[in-house]
Amino acid sequence: MSAMNLYSLKLRTAHLDNTHLEGGKERHCAGAERMVSEENILSVAKSLLERGLNRNEEIPDFIQLKIEKVNRSEVIELEALPVRTIDVPDVTAGIAELRKILETMTLPHVPEILELLQSRQNMRGAILLDVDTLERLEPDQERGVRVTYMDADTIEPTTAIKNHFREALVLATKVAFAPNIIGEICISDDPEYVTGYVASKNIGYVRITKLKEFGTPFGKRVFLYRGDKSEVPNCIEYLENRKVLVKNVPMRPVQDTQMQIN
Amino acid sequence: MSAMNLYSLKLRTAHLDNTHLEGGKERHCAGAERMVSEENILSVAKSLLERGLNRNEEIPDFIQLKIEKVNRSEVIELEALPVRTIDVPDVTAGIAELRKILETMTLPHVPEILELLQSRQNMRGAILLDVDTLERLEPDQERGVRVTYMDADTIEPTTAIKNHFREALVLATKVAFAPNIIGEICISDDPEYVTGYVASKNIGYVRITKLKEFGTPFGKRVFLYRGDKSEVPNCIEYLENRKVLVKNVPMRPVQDTQMQIN
Repeated sequence: MSAMNLYSLKLRTAHLDNTHLEGGKERHCAGAERMVSEENILSVAKSLLERGLNRNEEIPDFIQLKIEKVNRSEVIELEALPVRTIDVPDVTAGIAELRKILETMTLPHVPEILELLQSRQNMRGAILLDVDTLERLEPDQERGVRVTYMDADTIEPTTAIKNHFREALVLATKVAFAPNIIGEICISDDPEYVTGYVASKNIGYVRITKLKEFGTPFGKRVFLYRGDKSEVPNCIEYLENRKVLVKNVPMRPVQDTQMQIN
Repeated sequence: MSAMNLYSLKLRTAHLDNTHLEGGKERHCAGAERMVSEENILSVAKSLLERGLNRNEEIPDFIQLKIEKVNRSEVIELEALPVRTIDVPDVTAGIAELRKILETMTLPHVPEILELLQSRQNMRGAILLDVDTLERLEPDQERGVRVTYMDADTIEPTTAIKNHFREALVLATKVAFAPNIIGEICISDDPEYVTGYVASKNIGYVRITKLKEFGTPFGKRVFLYRGDKSEVPNCIEYLENRKVLVKNVPMRPVQDTQMQIN
């Protein structure tokens, strides 16, 4: 990518839904973001809006698109984590594979972490978990920590279709390089997307093909924190505000190219 | 327009410019808004973004697009003010025509109002002026009063080109029906747009073809208020928040159809 200006694009949608709760309204939020050079602002803005409008059958009650200039000198460039996929026949096998990997990471409380990961509740952001004390370190536990200002450092065909894999790999690469973060575990809240992953600088990005049952509308992202609590603000500042471009992000997991049709 | 949902779209851009001031940066803001039915959200959003990106040669440092659902039952429908154009040879003649019209409106301080209108300074919003005391009634005099939530009640071809006339007629029609407003005077801050207008429920929308010299980057919008100061909040609430759709807004001033090429 040239030395020309970069722009951060962030889309946020909110959707009031009164079908699930008796009486009250529930607010569903969703978001997406990109970081692109100036000649791509308009096409990427359009694809984000198309995605925001099409995500639910009903049009959201509120859509906000923010476009901000980013100083090129503030941007950190990272190499995408290496990717591998563990194919499992069912969720039980998937969780067992995940447990094995977590056990290699010298975590003292693996069962508790797995329980937290599978809890039936969604958050807008991620859990920041002290792996040694199990203390949750997010300043706002309902919101969680939101990782923003990142994108793949490639001119890719813009599309209104969400590419879960690429977006997750970009995020996981940024997170893996955060101070005091020793790993990340993620299950999508998309009911139709059952592949999850565990990632770190050491193990790379490890996809596990079934970490939840198809149709389950719950997901979770857990950042595994180790270190002194005084360093938490520095970690959150990196996650939320440092601008990161990730290089050499593949369009799809290499192992799956033969199997995937679309 | 059918009874389907309406959406308000508001675009705001900001542009940091350090070429004009010694040392410091100046912040230039611009905005545009529409109110459309749901099937037109995407095309109108695209045209607003295109306009925001193309307005200056340089891309703005900040662009925000907000899309909000509007309750159809809250929307007031108004008939567009009748339009006439006074063709004048120069600015002196234009101001003289404006003065004559203001004198028919029983205003005690016409010279002071004309001076305020021509002052060389821009505001994001409009001046709310007590015509009897010359007191300025905006809560924030630097910002002024911003009239929002209005549009023409027509499916029009969406375009990235600003139609000053239509946008101004929609705004002037909303303003003319505001409580305690007896009229409005406007000169654009666009250096290339020298036609201004004076409008009210009684006189309609009167265009005067030269109210400033070509190239002048200053403009002003003044709402003429008459009444007790206790009624000001109600007037501002109407201007800023009541949703108005204006019916039968022509694409261009009728008299000019022969002359205009584009």
